[in-house]
This record gives sequence, C-alpha cells and structure tokens, in this order.
Amino acid sequence: MRSVGVLGVSGYSGQELMRLLAGHGGARPVVVEKETAIGEAVRRDALELLFLATPHEVSLEAAPAALKAGAKVVDLSGAFRLKDPAVFAHWYGMPHTAPELLPEAVYGLTELNGEAVRGARLVANPGCYPTSVICGLHPLACAGAIDTSAGVICDSKSGVSGAGHRPSPGTHFVEVHENFKAYAVLRHKHVPEMVQALGLSLGDFFFTAHLLPITRGILSTMYAKLRRPWTREELLALYRRLYPDGGFIRVRENGTPNVRELQGTNYCDIYLTLDESGTRAVIVSCIDNLVKGAAGQALQNMNLMLGFTPNQGLV
Amino acid sequence: MRSVGVLGVSGYSGQELMRLLAGHGGARPVVVEKETAIGEAVRRDALELLFLATPHEVSLEAAPAALKAGAKVVDLSGAFRLKDPAVFAHWYGMPHTAPELLPEAVYGLTELNGEAVRGARLVANPGCYPTSVICGLHPLACAGAIDTSAGVICDSKSGVSGAGHRPSPGTHFVEVHENFKAYAVLRHKHVPEMVQALGLSLGDFFFTAHLLPITRGILSTMYAKLRRPWTREELLALYRRLYPDGGFIRVRENGTPNVRELQGTNYCDIYLTLDESGTRAVIVSCIDNLVKGAAGQALQNMNLMLGFTPNQGLV
Amino acid sequence: MRSVGVLGVSGYSGQELMRLLAGHGGARPVVVEKETAIGEAVRRDALELLFLATPHEVSLEAAPAALKAGAKVVDLSGAFRLKDPAVFAHWYGMPHTAPELLPEAVYGLTELNGEAVRGARLVANPGCYPTSVICGLHPLACAGAIDTSAGVICDSKSGVSGAGHRPSPGTHFVEVHENFKAYAVLRHKHVPEMVQALGLSLGDFFFTAHLLPITRGILSTMYAKLRRPWTREELLALYRRLYPDGGFIRVRENGTPNVRELQGTNYCDIYLTLDESGTRAVIVSCIDNLVKGAAGQALQNMNLMLGFTPNQGLV
Amino acid sequence: MRSVGVLGVSGYSGQELMRLLAGHGGARPVVVEKETAIGEAVRRDALELLFLATPHEVSLEAAPAALKAGAKVVDLSGAFRLKDPAVFAHWYGMPHTAPELLPEAVYGLTELNGEAVRGARLVANPGCYPTSVICGLHPLACAGAIDTSAGVICDSKSGVSGAGHRPSPGTHFVEVHENFKAYAVLRHKHVPEMVQALGLSLGDFFFTAHLLPITRGILSTMYAKLRRPWTREELLALYRRLYPDGGFIRVRENGTPNVRELQGTNYCDIYLTLDESGTRAVIVSCIDNLVKGAAGQALQNMNLMLGFTPNQGLV
Repeated sequence: MRSVGVLGVSGYSGQELMRLLAGHGGARPVVVEKETAIGEAVRRDALELLFLATPHEVSLEAAPAALKAGAKVVDLSGAFRLKDPAVFAHWYGMPHTAPELLPEAVYGLTELNGEAVRGARLVANPGCYPTSVICGLHPLACAGAIDTSAGVICDSKSGVSGAGHRPSPGTHFVEVHENFKAYAVLRHKHVPEMVQALGLSLGDFFFTAHLLPITRGILSTMYAKLRRPWTREELLALYRRLYPDGGFIRVRENGTPNVRELQGTNYCDIYLTLDESGTRAVIVSCIDNLVKGAAGQALQNMNLMLGFTPNQGLV
Repeated sequence: MRSVGVLGVSGYSGQELMRLLAGHGGARPVVVEKETAIGEAVRRDALELLFLATPHEVSLEAAPAALKAGAKVVDLSGAFRLKDPAVFAHWYGMPHTAPELLPEAVYGLTELNGEAVRGARLVANPGCYPTSVICGLHPLACAGAIDTSAGVICDSKSGVSGAGHRPSPGTHFVEVHENFKAYAVLRHKHVPEMVQALGLSLGDFFFTAHLLPITRGILSTMYAKLRRPWTREELLALYRRLYPDGGFIRVRENGTPNVRELQGTNYCDIYLTLDESGTRAVIVSCIDNLVKGAAGQALQNMNLMLGFTPNQGLV
Repeated sequence: MRSVGVLGVSGYSGQELMRLLAGHGGARPVVVEKETAIGEAVRRDALELLFLATPHEVSLEAAPAALKAGAKVVDLSGAFRLKDPAVFAHWYGMPHTAPELLPEAVYGLTELNGEAVRGARLVANPGCYPTSVICGLHPLACAGAIDTSAGVICDSKSGVSGAGHRPSPGTHFVEVHENFKAYAVLRHKHVPEMVQALGLSLGDFFFTAHLLPITRGILSTMYAKLRRPWTREELLALYRRLYPDGGFIRVRENGTPNVRELQGTNYCDIYLTLDESGTRAVIVSCIDNLVKGAAGQALQNMNLMLGFTPNQGLV
Repeated sequence: MRSVGVLGVSGYSGQELMRLLAGHGGARPVVVEKETAIGEAVRRDALELLFLATPHEVSLEAAPAALKAGAKVVDLSGAFRLKDPAVFAHWYGMPHTAPELLPEAVYGLTELNGEAVRGARLVANPGCYPTSVICGLHPLACAGAIDTSAGVICDSKSGVSGAGHRPSPGTHFVEVHENFKAYAVLRHKHVPEMVQALGLSLGDFFFTAHLLPITRGILSTMYAKLRRPWTREELLALYRRLYPDGGFIRVRENGTPNVRELQGTNYCDIYLTLDESGTRAVIVSCIDNLVKGAAGQALQNMNLMLGFTPNQGLV
C-alpha cells in the first residue's frame, strides 16, 4: 500500500475522494489537516502524492510546498489549469503566485493527455463543466471538423453538489427545489479552460451554466456546425477511435444518456446526432460531477502517475 | 356571466383551465363530458366558446362540430397549429381530417397575433415549448436580425407536467427524481410549429428537449448569430417595443429568470445577453408550461375572442 | 384601508405575510425596518396593528414598545405563547423579559379562542407544529375523551421552510434532498405550547419532529386511547360541532389529506379513524406551515382584532 | 460459482437483487423468464436456489415447483410469511393455495431466525415495512418489556420504490413530488406479519404508512410504554446483546439516523430514547427498503442457506 495524502476532506470532492480511495486497494489515504505544514506532512507520512481538494488560493500555496517535499500533486482546483497566468488573473480575479509551475502542469483529462499524465509531477484536474464539454467536443475539435465561424454552443446543466457544501442562499433547499435557472451566461470562469483544451477561441465559444434541482450530475448539450457533411457512421467511427471500448468515455449507439445511470461512476457517456444535411452535430455528454468531474478523475490521474492499473478503484 | 365549455378536464391543462376559469369572474365554465355530442352540448348550454383540452385526434373531430353549432373554439392540441396539412401528416403521423379549417385557424400567441385572435372563430393555442421559444426569438426574427446560416439553437428544459397526467414509465417518480435527460433531439414534433411562427426554415433550426425533475416550468436557452453588431440598448429597445410594459411578456433588465418565480402565473420572462462583439445573442425565456404554455394562454385568447379585458382572470 | 406594520419581512413567514396582505383588500401593509424605533414607526405610520415575524428575542422587545405606542400586536414567535415565564425560560434558554404581558396575551388559535382574540391587544400566533397538533387533538381533549395514562403520541413531519431561510448545513439542498430524518425526539421546544393548549401534562405527551424533503407542509399523525368505545359517527359529530362547515378546519369524511392540496391555503384538514374496538383513534392533520401554521393564521387573527370578515384575504 | 435463479427481474427488488448478485463473487445469477416452466429451469441450469421477486400469486405457484425440482427458495413476496392460511386469506383477499408449505417456511429475518434460515428449504423474505418495525421493536418485545395495554405505535414512512415500478397515478412524479401523505391507516396488509413476528396482538398494534417523496428508504418511529422504568444504559445493553457489533443492525449511541446514510446498504440503524420517567421508549429505525427491506435481506438469507459468509456481497 502506497501513501497518498488528501488536503481538504470536508468538501464534497474531498469526501468523494476519501470514499473512492477507501475502495482502491493500492493506495492508503492520509488526511492532511488544514493547519499542517504541507512539507512536513509529506515527509512524515511518506506521501508519494498529495490530492488538493481545496480552493485555488489554497492550492497555489500547497502545490509548490508538496512538490518541493518530493510528492506528486493532483490539484482539483483551477489553480494550474490555465497555461497563461494573465488569463488566470483575469478570470480568477487574483495574480497567479506560482507561474513557474504552469509549464510543467499537465491538464489531467486522461483520455486526452494520458502519456503526459503518466510522467507528470503536477496534474491540474479538470473542472466538472469542462470535463463534460471537452469530452463531448474533443474528437470533432481535434479532427478540425468544426466550422467555428458558426459558433460552438455548450448548454450545460449541473446538480447542486457542484456548488460546494458551504451553505448559501443559492444552495438552500427551498431555493433550489422545484426550481431551475441559468447562471453565469457567457461569463463562467471555466470557459477559458474549455477553449484552451479544445483549441478554440473565446469569441467562437458560447457556454451557459444551469442549476438542476438534483444532487449529482452534469449533462451538456453541444451544437456544432461541421465543415463538410458527415455520415453518422463516420462520426461514430471518429469518436470510437479516440474513445475505444473499455475506457471511461463511452460512445452510445442508441438512446440519450441520463444523469442517474452515471451517478457514482467515473463514466462519461456521449450521444451523437446529425441533422439531415449531415453538417450539424448535436452532442449530449453526461457525467457524475463529483466522480468523472472531480474525485474519480483525480483517482484516474493518480493511477497513471503511480503506475496502478488505469481503472483501479473506479467503476 | 357567459357560458364557455371545457372538453377534457381530466388532464393537467384541463384542470388548470378549470382553476383559472373559477377565478375569472366573467365566464362560467361548463364541463363537457367526453361522451357528449358536441353540437348538442353547445346548443343546450348556450356555449359561446369551447376549449378543447384534448389530444389532437379528438380535437380534429370536436372543433368542426363546435364551430358548426355556433361556438368559437380554442384548441389546446396541435391539431390546427400547422398551416400545411402535409406537414401535419408528416409530424403527427396521421392525415389531417379537417384541412378546410386550417386557413381560418389563428395561431393564438396573443402577443404576436392579437388582432387576428380578436376576430377568430378558431384559435390554435400554441404548444408549451413553442411558446417559450417563440416569445424569446420573435423580436429578433421579425426584425430580420438573425444570421440564420449560423443556425438558431434552442435548448429547452421542461417540467414533468408537460408530459401529461397519464402514468407511464417515463413519468414514474423513481425514474424522474434526481435525474435529468435530453430527449427527441432534433426531432420533436413541436419544431415545425416554431419555425412556422418565426419564419425560419427547418434546416436552420436546432431544438433539443430535456426533462427536468420538477412539476411545472419551462426554461429555454437560445443562441443566435446576428447579421450586424448590436448594443445591449438596441436589443432591449427592440424587445420592449414588441413587448411593452403591462403585458405578460416581461423583458428583464437584470438577473436571469427562474421557473419558480413564474409558477402559477401567465408571465413569460425574458433575459437577454450579447457577447463582447455584439453579434451573438443568448436569450433565456421562462414560463409556467401549464399557464402561459397552455391554460393561461387559452384564457388569454378567450379574453380577446369574447371581448373581456386582456388580462382578466390572469396573474 | 387601515395601516398595519410588518417587522421581519426577510424570513419566509414575513414574506408570506406580505404576499397575503397584498391580496387582503382592507389592510395596507407597511414594512417596518429592523433599525426603526418601533414606537416611532407606529405613530408615524398610524399603525393599528404590528405583526412581528421576528425571532423571540426581538419580539420580547418589540411587542411592549408597539403596545405602548398604541398598536395591537400579533407576534409570530414563541415569545408570548407560554403562560408561565419559568417554563419559557426552561425551553427557550433565556429569562422572559416582559412577563407582565403574559396574562393578557391571547394564544391565537382562532378556532379555539376566537372571542378572546377579538378583544386582544396582544396575540401570540401559534407555532406551526403546535397548530397541526392542537387542531387535531383539541376536540378529543376538550371533551375529556382521552385516556391520557396510555400516552398521547404526535408524530409530525414538516417541510424545510419551517427551518427558516437562513442557510445552514441542515437546509443545504444536498443534505435534504432524497433524505428524511427524525429530530428533537421528545425534546422539541414547541412541546410545552401543545400541552398547555390541550390541557395535557408533559409526562403523557410524546412528540417527534421529522424533516421532509419538501418546501411547504406539515402532516401530523396522532394516536390516542379513548376512555370508552366511540363510534365513527360520534367522533365525526364531535369534530364537526367544534369545527363547523365554512371554517378553515375541515373534517374529512373520506380519504387521508396530503400536504399538496393545502399548499398556499389557510386550511387545516383532519382525517379520523378508529380501530375495531372504538377505543383507539388515529388522527391525521395537515396544513401549510407558512399559511395556517404562520402567516395565514396571523392574518386570521388580524381579521378578528380589527373587525374584518374572519376569512378576508384567505383561501 | 454456484447457480442461483431469479424470477421477476423487471421489478425494483429483482433489479436490485441482480445488482447485488453481480458483486457477490460466489453465486452466479441466472435470470428465469416468466414463461419458463420453473422445474425445468431449475434442472436445466442446476439452480441450487431460486429467488422469487414476484407478486404473491406467482410465488404461490412457483415456490412449490422449485422446491419439488430440488431448489431452495427465497420468496420476496408475502405468500409464505403468515403461518395461518386463514389470516393470509383475510389480508390478501385470496385463499392460500400451498398451505402445506407454511409449517416449514422460515421467516427470513436473519437477526431473529438465523439458525432456522440456515437449515431452511423455503424462506419467506420479510416485507420492507415489517423489517424496519420488527428490527426496532424485537428486543423490547422478546424481553417482555412492553406494557401492551397502552398500545404499540408504529409510524412508518417509505420512499416510492416500495410501491413498485408499475406506473400508476399514485407513483406519477407530479403526484408525489413536493407532497406527503398517510395511507392505509390501521389496515396495511403487512400488519399481521409484524404482530406475528413480535408476538403481539392485532388489537394492541397501531401502524400507519406514509409516502415520502424520495426513491429509497424507510424510517419508522415507534412508541412503546414499558412495564417498569428503564435506564438508557439498560436499554442500550438489551439492544446490543441482540444486535452485536459487526452485524447489519446497528444500535446508535448518538444522533438520529437518516435514510440517505443507509441508501444502497444492508444496514438497519436504530436510535433509542427514553422519556424522563424511563417508562416510555421512542425507537427510530431506518433502512433502505430495496436492500435490507428486500433484495439485500434476500441475499443475506441466501448466504446462510448456501453456506457463504453471512455478509458476503453486502455492504
């Protein structure tokens, strides 16, 4: 059993990570208390890797300390996801205090960056909305198939656990139950992370977040115009080549996904449709925001970074 | 008190209509039983108007009979919404059996067709999804502002009452609760109604329906590319000119709408945003699917057809 | 229009009171800000009556000030419900700072104390759990029909709005949704209010509160052993004598009540059953906790205190 | 791997059983189709044991056939729970067609009847409400501690999956969501099963069922008068003796249980309180109705009947 630390176990992602680690079988989780000096904790408990399930302000301090003490780091916050510290400063409203780490930080969407994750010291675990959107659009984007001048539309809907466990007016049962709303229209702070990963530009990308009256789950509905007509078979073949059978991203032949099927799992299910002309694709992707969108993906990254089987401890 | 009939009081729309008529003050609702000969009921109870809260198959027979007996008709089904009987046949899977009535049938979205509704014998009450989408896009569409070649995207989410009160696997509590899904992607049968009312073509219009785990409410998020850059002030001015203060469509200056604020009301609230370039509009519209999306709009049509105050009996 | 003040409009009860007053027609609501000197507000706005939708600590100070300035008071808190200041001190954990007002304070359950409410300067509006329990048991209790040695059991379930609108871990959507729990077993602070109103002793009375994953509604299931066998007809006759037709407490002949039928209304519906021996009664009572359990009942009290029709502004 | 059959995999209990068997490791589940001749299926697939996740009418026919063919049977219906066929006929509204099997049928509440289950050919798996109630009251009942003349009160609340997966008006999302009701007051057909297992008489036992707007979980609140004063320590000791550490029934020292903690698990959590006199106990018990209340308990019985570890495949 190899020792891995978890900083930030009170939040939903931290709790979920502890639940998953308890069933992993190869990694022994060590809770790192907020007050602890990180370096000391790493050395005392011989931590090979530290998960940061913390706000980005905390991660900006904890990650360098952990790396310096010799641990690898999987950071679940947005601290190390954006390559350009100026973009970070703009969207997060604070200067980046560890820009020297950005070049080596690997964006931990395993299905895109598996090899880089294997060799990484520092992995920036993707946000939950970005995971659902990037998994859905990556094949089309990397095939250069999208006519970006028509705009790429991402309409995403998330359960309440994505808003964190701190009580607030916006997460009060009475405000959320039997309700639904859009928020952060065109200005969600996860947008730059999505366009960076997809190689798109901000001006062509339109993202709206919505709050679902459920606990867990994200479903994103995405609309893209294609440069040329595609057949359904071509489209399925493209997605299946990038997401082969046996992985956590599953391309569905039939039937739209629903969030409940995926709750508690690390799967991302993707449904694809074309219009009659074959030049418009509608892609629906679905994940559990706390698993594939946070803790499960973090564990998936750990599996690669420490040499475990890729899907160990994950269903 | 003037007598109006209601056929189909067991469904959610019919129940809601009875609730609203009970508070109207000027119209006395008469329940017309399913087995009754419509013409006889119209004459016996001196019905000036008959609401059809019935499936389209039933409306296709009941509407001609009621009109022949001298009553006006507000039909809540899809039977008389589409002008072209061939389009009806394609999307509803059956031939239209009263095509002679289609030329005079008025599409009862009062805010668009108020004058025609006033003089109509037969009003086709809009569907719930179409109401939310058409209200949201009509100003841009009728101003010719949309670059349709980029595609118009309508991502709509509806509560379960929209699926009707007949028990089915898809409306079982256990299937819907803590769940969310897309359905009828690119092939919802209300699509032709939307494009007809907006003057768009099917090939440029992309609609996805989703099932929310709530009882009442529709929220539609719409994305359109504009032919030229607009300012926020221009956009607000356009919408306010078509939807003046005091009506049931309200243009919100600030804050996205949420479905709960509108539950039980006949309002449609609209939120508008532009991207930085001013060439991309995101419009969020929100209604109670059983009121503005069905029974309330039917009452609104009755008010015009029988000469009541436009908002009598509606909040 | 007569002027009435409302102190505490940010909470759910205060908001509901404002909603009801808006439709009352005879009373003009004036919002009294937290910082205002009460006496000054009463005189400046010529308030005939002041509603206190405030915590009991605030009510203990505001009620004497309002009375001194010449306004009547309806207090929605627990400050003036208990006759014995020592009992108050024990259950509320603080000394009673206005004990001189307790003798004149009338417990505002109109159906029990209508005459006293009419002449009262100070009305203590009942708690939500107590309203549902007292309405359910009062006829049996005042008829002396209960064999109290067997214990009176009150098993109550409340929606989340009863816990107030302040965000807390216990009202977070994620904690409440798809969940259910008992709390405050045998030690809820509304228990002394119930036994006082019913003339029972604490030792014979067993109350459990539960948190329902709904916004509004209380359903209480009560079990009592009777001193002699009763027939169903006798039992119905007893309840109907005390709760005559046309009032807000309705005795149901058939069918158990459910909370949704009563949401938004001031009704309390009561269902009665006897076992085969006729010596065991099971009583189910149901209210909207924010209306009959708070703001609606407060308005009902105002109607009597100011000489309006008893049900004005209430449905 | 040993072969076990499952008849009735379309219902919620059958689905849950398949889910649990998939993770058991020692038993290979074989789906037995409705149309199959049971005896043939048992022989062809060498089934050692057959689970009947079927209505009682079906179980009455399938159980004798399976036994005759040499398989053991765990029946999840009410067909073999009541010892007296006349009581069965009264509560189930049909004659018992296999009364010869009743003497050997073992009531499969493992924590009460473990030894008998081990040797049984036919186990009647307890109902979900009865499981929660019997686990909660059994220690007091078998200690003879209850003063039954005061009546034993069981106030139970269940999630919707307990009503089965067949769509009906009562399970429609719109009817259940934001709602709560009591039903079958004093006449639920699981009552005789509870009094039989607890050794109580029908006349002293008062059970009310309620429908919670959640998918999974039962919470029962029970009230009993005791023959003599007990201390909290005595009470805890009694329950812990019968439910030792390491089993699926857990006696909680502190804090009331909630249904969500137990969802997906086979645990029954029990919370105990006494009033000040020590003569009144309030017991709260909590289970997942589909696991400990159905499929999990069925697997627990199988583990004993086939010689597996008692908790194999269960969490």
